[in-house]
Amino acid sequence: MPWDELSATDGILRQIAQRDSLQPHEVGIGDDSAVVSWNSNNMVVCSDVIVEEVHFSLRYFGYSDVGYKAISTNISDIAAMGAIPDCVLVTVAGPSYSDLDAIFLGLTTACSQYETRLIGGDLSIAAQLSISVCAIGHLVDPSSVLRRDGARAGQSIFVTGPLGRSSHSLRHLRSGGSPDLLSREDLQAHLRPQARIKEGQQALRSGVSSGIDISDGLALDLHRLADASGLGFRVESLPIAPGATEADALFGGDDYELILTTSHPKQLVDDFHAAGLLEPKFLGVTVDDRSLRTFHARPLPKIGYHHSPTTER
Amino acid sequence: MPWDELSATDGILRQIAQRDSLQPHEVGIGDDSAVVSWNSNNMVVCSDVIVEEVHFSLRYFGYSDVGYKAISTNISDIAAMGAIPDCVLVTVAGPSYSDLDAIFLGLTTACSQYETRLIGGDLSIAAQLSISVCAIGHLVDPSSVLRRDGARAGQSIFVTGPLGRSSHSLRHLRSGGSPDLLSREDLQAHLRPQARIKEGQQALRSGVSSGIDISDGLALDLHRLADASGLGFRVESLPIAPGATEADALFGGDDYELILTTSHPKQLVDDFHAAGLLEPKFLGVTVDDRSLRTFHARPLPKIGYHHSPTTER
Repeated sequence: MPWDELSATDGILRQIAQRDSLQPHEVGIGDDSAVVSWNSNNMVVCSDVIVEEVHFSLRYFGYSDVGYKAISTNISDIAAMGAIPDCVLVTVAGPSYSDLDAIFLGLTTACSQYETRLIGGDLSIAAQLSISVCAIGHLVDPSSVLRRDGARAGQSIFVTGPLGRSSHSLRHLRSGGSPDLLSREDLQAHLRPQARIKEGQQALRSGVSSGIDISDGLALDLHRLADASGLGFRVESLPIAPGATEADALFGGDDYELILTTSHPKQLVDDFHAAGLLEPKFLGVTVDDRSLRTFHARPLPKIGYHHSPTTER
Repeated sequence: MPWDELSATDGILRQIAQRDSLQPHEVGIGDDSAVVSWNSNNMVVCSDVIVEEVHFSLRYFGYSDVGYKAISTNISDIAAMGAIPDCVLVTVAGPSYSDLDAIFLGLTTACSQYETRLIGGDLSIAAQLSISVCAIGHLVDPSSVLRRDGARAGQSIFVTGPLGRSSHSLRHLRSGGSPDLLSREDLQAHLRPQARIKEGQQALRSGVSSGIDISDGLALDLHRLADASGLGFRVESLPIAPGATEADALFGGDDYELILTTSHPKQLVDDFHAAGLLEPKFLGVTVDDRSLRTFHARPLPKIGYHHSPTTER
């Protein structure tokens, strides 16, 4: 099986999932996190790895940023289920000169911010720095979970924030631009992305029927949600972050905002306001015809950020 | 912090653990697995990574062996707590030519053997193959767990099987010897080690007061158990696997047998017999004086298998 066809959350693991028989309320491989029955409780678990020169570069990242980002990418997968993170385990593999103290400062800073315990892990020498995290969380209401296959035709599609900021910053840094020329917000969007835990939970309380986090770009992750739900979509509006391009917002990676679909758009916006959260931005609507997937009336390509050192944009 | 001072289960994570406040019945970082209270249940969790040319070499390992071993090393950490494994998450990072199908065959074969579900994971391109696993399990009796700090002076020390087989095979393979010259059992001991799940649970039922799995050699792991329990030991007997040397048995890695200490040695042996398990082998006794740590009346060096590509024996 060629690796080029694989991306972070799709791929061969889904084949394995098909051999596993799920119990009611369980969510298998293929969503942001798995939901499994454990001692009569629904446990939400995920595992994501970030690799040097694939998901981050030490040319722009401090070691503490790498630790922070490893936690955020995993907590984002918990957030995308509308769940609450409880604890993480971390394995760090890297060269002997890696600054472990800084990495662990980043890990613990993020854990502290997400009110999540770091309960275990492992360390190993390796030629290339990589951090693999397993995050474990729980659902507030065990019968209610934000799945990517829950969208229905005729719903409004929202996103929890403007898009393209991380991609914009990465372009700047890759072209040799000084980090000092970026705003603190733009730089942090790439180095220390924020997982939308409160937004995921509020979405569930507001009756949102599906959700996914944007790790590989709006276009690719919206296609994934549409694939899982068996629907099409018309994107009519795009909230682009200041400084970012339309391409950054559509195809850039590492936004970590949530895409949400709902039959109650006014309630969603009002509830987010009342909760003191950033107003979710309207993107468009879901449609029955799964072959219809457009941005401003043109087909939206199913492409996104491709985490491969050989195919960097 | 220099990496040379770190080994798989010791190190900086323990510092972090000290900032974490444990609840009653919880076991923090520093044991084979953590035991944390999750939704009123004690959850046993661990995470271990294996890295190419550090923990395995593709010169001797097939890709399916690598997948199998990644699961076994983690399930062994669950077994060392006397717990039952429930599910694993796996992240695989490696070069694009890696045989993913074979890796996942190894992963699923091991999961099937350990009656453990593979519920999620991640894949990434990387220069070097590594597999990080997080294993989640549970205790049969929530108040009873096999810890490495539970030994008391005057107890008998046992090990669940003869030692040095994996190290003997590795020496043979590293010196250019053909795998065909090794017995199937010897080769499998290195490529596909077996986690001692039944033995860990039986040990708890038989009143064993402490346990640890041998991943880095009997000497180092027995010192770890003695350190955690604040004791010394006298090793008077050593069960050496056929073909292995005394050094293999004392200092070789990857045995994955369990060291157990008990005040009821006859009960332990009788119970293992009755359960159809291999008879545990007597090693020696624990003593109050923590400075006294001997093998055949001579000090036992606190050294073991060091997982570092630059310090291969």
